[in-house]
Amino acid sequence: MDRKKVSMAVVKRLPRYYRYLSDLLKLDTIRISSRELSERMGITASQIRQDLNCFGGFGQQGYGYNVELLYKEIGKILGLENNYKTVIIGAGNMGRALANYENFERRGYRLAAIFDVNTELIGKKINNIEIRHFDTIEEYLKLNHIDIAMITVPFEKTPEVADRVARAGIKGLWNFSPMDLKLPYNVVIENVHLSDGLMVLGYRLNEIL
Amino acid sequence: MDRKKVSMAVVKRLPRYYRYLSDLLKLDTIRISSRELSERMGITASQIRQDLNCFGGFGQQGYGYNVELLYKEIGKILGLENNYKTVIIGAGNMGRALANYENFERRGYRLAAIFDVNTELIGKKINNIEIRHFDTIEEYLKLNHIDIAMITVPFEKTPEVADRVARAGIKGLWNFSPMDLKLPYNVVIENVHLSDGLMVLGYRLNEIL
Repeated sequence: MDRKKVSMAVVKRLPRYYRYLSDLLKLDTIRISSRELSERMGITASQIRQDLNCFGGFGQQGYGYNVELLYKEIGKILGLENNYKTVIIGAGNMGRALANYENFERRGYRLAAIFDVNTELIGKKINNIEIRHFDTIEEYLKLNHIDIAMITVPFEKTPEVADRVARAGIKGLWNFSPMDLKLPYNVVIENVHLSDGLMVLGYRLNEIL
Repeated sequence: MDRKKVSMAVVKRLPRYYRYLSDLLKLDTIRISSRELSERMGITASQIRQDLNCFGGFGQQGYGYNVELLYKEIGKILGLENNYKTVIIGAGNMGRALANYENFERRGYRLAAIFDVNTELIGKKINNIEIRHFDTIEEYLKLNHIDIAMITVPFEKTPEVADRVARAGIKGLWNFSPMDLKLPYNVVIENVHLSDGLMVLGYRLNEIL
């Protein structure tokens, strides 16, 4: 299978398929037609067929999709078999919320450490994960392979923190500051813009009011 | 202008246009071509022209877009002129993070109150907003018009809380529990799935590793 053929538009829908297939597996569902999946997910059956065609071989005319196979394949495409290790930079409210978010571990992401600059927090634990001083991050990363840093530090500190973390070798940055972070290194950055979701809600609300 | 013609796919890109146009306004940019906007935003110029054509009249051959007009028009489409009032249900880490998130107010969303069931928190303030007991929400909503509830309560409490808030008249629910919340009323629900974003990051990371 040629992974390069999967477009980002499809990739962005994959986590949603993955969630629905996970729910179906919990209900011991063995197979599902694109029509049934369409009704559950609220996307057209033709969109589903088109999306899942990228992975080939899992949909069969008159049979539908094998739920477990499709679930596993989408998991592979998403890189979940890599068992990514993560750290959180910033033990404020958002950092704490992320440290306590159960679904990340369920998806194979393991939180290894939390970093902050507030000396009062160092050595304490959130959800059983130790808070370390940010000044020790380079040292920590020499001894521990970490794939992803979730950055939840204040806005004005974000570029500096991201730069330091990327230079210390972390390849994936998940940025919660409301800015499109860019770096001159070969790192992957996903910027979370919480207000974007709120504005989409506002648009839909405007339609029914 | 016929608002019905704007598809959800376009709507989901509007907050991003809005952010970029806001940045351009801060730089006193009066007009911009779709090519320049394309380079800044990393989307094709043809996609931009297609998206912004939905609003008609702002792009002119050889002139480009009037930044201020387009910014205002997109704001209108997004319903920002409604000055939506919000409440947060759940004063845990995520609730606190949202209460302190500066960009919502900048977009015209005003946080009016925070609700929780923990009696130790009642009367305290987060970012100058009072925490009230959730049992008083029906009474509060009789006296105060609120458009949107941001729900950050534990997973198992979410359906019950959402139901109660919707029956008390709130029309927009922003749900942070990892579930696709559905309700039998005429309410608009946006479900935030934080792990979806993390999985897209994981996919992109898998490509470069």
